[in-house]
Amino acid sequence: MQEKGIGMERIAIVGGTGALGGGLAMRCARAGLSVAIGSRDPARAEAAAREIAVQTGNPAITGHDNAGAAALGDIVFVTVPFASQAATLASIRPVCAGRIVVDTTVPLVPPKVARVQLPAEGSAAAVAAAALGPEVRLVTGLHNISAAKLGQEGDPGCDVLVFGDDVEAREAVVGLAGRIGLRAFHAGPLDNSVAAEAMTSVLISINRRYKVADGAGLRITGIA
Amino acid sequence: MQEKGIGMERIAIVGGTGALGGGLAMRCARAGLSVAIGSRDPARAEAAAREIAVQTGNPAITGHDNAGAAALGDIVFVTVPFASQAATLASIRPVCAGRIVVDTTVPLVPPKVARVQLPAEGSAAAVAAAALGPEVRLVTGLHNISAAKLGQEGDPGCDVLVFGDDVEAREAVVGLAGRIGLRAFHAGPLDNSVAAEAMTSVLISINRRYKVADGAGLRITGIA
Repeated sequence: MQEKGIGMERIAIVGGTGALGGGLAMRCARAGLSVAIGSRDPARAEAAAREIAVQTGNPAITGHDNAGAAALGDIVFVTVPFASQAATLASIRPVCAGRIVVDTTVPLVPPKVARVQLPAEGSAAAVAAAALGPEVRLVTGLHNISAAKLGQEGDPGCDVLVFGDDVEAREAVVGLAGRIGLRAFHAGPLDNSVAAEAMTSVLISINRRYKVADGAGLRITGIA
Repeated sequence: MQEKGIGMERIAIVGGTGALGGGLAMRCARAGLSVAIGSRDPARAEAAAREIAVQTGNPAITGHDNAGAAALGDIVFVTVPFASQAATLASIRPVCAGRIVVDTTVPLVPPKVARVQLPAEGSAAAVAAAALGPEVRLVTGLHNISAAKLGQEGDPGCDVLVFGDDVEAREAVVGLAGRIGLRAFHAGPLDNSVAAEAMTSVLISINRRYKVADGAGLRITGIA
């Protein structure tokens, strides 16, 4: 994965017409990557793809249904609400064997999204692992970056934590993050994902209390 | 609490002869606060208190057994290992009714301290709430700052997240943190504490992978 040149990798974004997925698609498109945008409604995905192609001048942006997009991805991001996570993952599982799937799900339970409410499984990562099975190379990440910051150009002013038990898959995702202008860290096994998942509610709480318009973020400090 | 002048507040540190408690005691002493250091061994606490008094030139540092220290604190910090948390809190509960108790416990389970392993109760905060009962004004915090950074002078280069259901108690702790040179944030209810507790294992994981000598920390970004 890492040896391929810029633009040789195809990124799939399942749920790519949502806010987070759209921001990620913009950032990948600007970096010259090929992006397959997935949606339950392929016409919506195609419209979003055309829009991003025009905005970024990158023609290699295409729209599909979710499984169609996933089938095209060297790295498949999943950016859907927690309520849709398990069903969406089940729907793409057949085409994802052997692929790197990056689940970005945060287990927010509306309306109290500023309060941590972890699922019975322990974390969204655990839900994803159960839904995708062992044949998928599961990685999680992007929990603590707002859609606005993901979509903007340049340094978003926050870091990205990447979790996974498959170290090579995690490395591919950390490397990809760097190529699209994000400072990413290896943050440990899937069991650690719950830290970043829970931190999202903390950031929402801080956004409200301190009136942060663009979304508070996290930086790791003390790294030489 | 907030109206009192500098030096009028007495801080108690239960487990104050440990690394984190010692760092906190140094920081409070330098800020001119009175500090009651607690230990299971009061002689050790007295020795630590004398040492800190000499190092900081602040004479108002005293040593006690844990309950004796807690009984003197306007704000009582608890800095003990997870394995000792419940028993320690039970031992100070009788003297803590009505007091603000700041539990700093991170639920690390050796030897795999770089892996998140949350307790059956959900979090160390939940363990503390059960151990202390409703008559104690429970706040949690200081989960993500290393003992070394806590003990050093000046800006530690990381932020402090403070959790609690008692908003006034939480405010007192955020205010105190500011007085000892820490940038602290209201991070929501006790339910949110798990985010910072789990993040400690992530930071340990990052310390190991990226060879961070002084301990990685967290900054909240995007705050105007």
